[in-house]
Amino acid sequence: MTHPIPPLREALRLMVITDRRLAGDPGWLDAVAAALEAGATAIQLRDKAAPSDELLEMARQLHPLCRRHGALFLVNDRFDVALAAEAHGVHLGDDDLPPSAVRRVVPRNFVIGRSADTEAEAQAAESEGASYLGVGSVFGTRTKAEVAGEVIGTERLAEVAAAVSIPIVGIGGVTADNAAELIRAGAAGVAVVSAVMGARDPGGATKDLLSAIHT
Amino acid sequence: MTHPIPPLREALRLMVITDRRLAGDPGWLDAVAAALEAGATAIQLRDKAAPSDELLEMARQLHPLCRRHGALFLVNDRFDVALAAEAHGVHLGDDDLPPSAVRRVVPRNFVIGRSADTEAEAQAAESEGASYLGVGSVFGTRTKAEVAGEVIGTERLAEVAAAVSIPIVGIGGVTADNAAELIRAGAAGVAVVSAVMGARDPGGATKDLLSAIHT
Repeated sequence: MTHPIPPLREALRLMVITDRRLAGDPGWLDAVAAALEAGATAIQLRDKAAPSDELLEMARQLHPLCRRHGALFLVNDRFDVALAAEAHGVHLGDDDLPPSAVRRVVPRNFVIGRSADTEAEAQAAESEGASYLGVGSVFGTRTKAEVAGEVIGTERLAEVAAAVSIPIVGIGGVTADNAAELIRAGAAGVAVVSAVMGARDPGGATKDLLSAIHT
Repeated sequence: MTHPIPPLREALRLMVITDRRLAGDPGWLDAVAAALEAGATAIQLRDKAAPSDELLEMARQLHPLCRRHGALFLVNDRFDVALAAEAHGVHLGDDDLPPSAVRRVVPRNFVIGRSADTEAEAQAAESEGASYLGVGSVFGTRTKAEVAGEVIGTERLAEVAAAVSIPIVGIGGVTADNAAELIRAGAAGVAVVSAVMGARDPGGATKDLLSAIHT
């Protein structure tokens, strides 16, 4: 059974996006466990290369971890896998399904995230039924998951945040050193891949990010 | 809006599985149109390489064609795309989601096909809620879509067909020359990729297959 969806804005405080290529196997799962233990509020399962059955298996491994910590649990791209694994929702990137096509066919409280890097994209996504936006790449990035077009900087992020009423998370090159800037610019939280999945100490890296956000 | 699901056993008489790599673009769509015009009863959209948004776009191109001809319309692997495009169902191959995980979360009348090449696999799929089975590769094949493990021959196909109560379609190297053997062995129909998508005259190839099946 799915655990209740946590209040969205709080759950978006620190989203860790999985990267099996970066963290290895089972390193990626260990990193998620450590991040949740350290206080990560949301996990997004992302693996564009995995066949469907394998992705479902990964989702089923993540689910109990997320439930134990009351974390928001999302699957990138595949709302079929999200539904099958009883995740809370899906994150839709640039090449994924449009929110409008998904909103019509998922349960009412299903969370739909959408990547956006302009005010126009953000407003379109909101009107199509997106629950939150992933906005970036704010600082540039090392991983594909963090890329949503060009590097936009914190000013653009602030403009996008002001243009919609749904919460946004900043993504792309976020570290403990720059995370607070995004919160000041209006983001509800930040999303990271390499800062946690590529860290030697994913739990410590998570704590550092959370401390940075709370200042 | 989706057109009504045609009676399944009749709709499985001749399933054409798309192959954009084999038929080109827009050749794949022209081939489907010609096949439907010639009497193909089911279309399965298959493109493992296409990003989700592109696959949905392809599904949206197919939908009106299938509706016009009253054909069964399925999407390979992705039930999210099938739901978003209002297709009738999904075909689940070996590396795709298990039928059990899908049946729980789709509408009651959603069609679920499953690849199987043994009696045990077939019975498991039926008990998990599969609506029909794709059984093969019966004669060997040139395309990945037609492969479901080893080459099994018509005797094994007959055993599998006898082991379940849901209809089966034979797949893998099916041509107008051998299609009738599969029907005699207990298949409700046949599924083809290259015999139509790789044909110089997809409409003519479809007619030949249908004639072969009706003898």
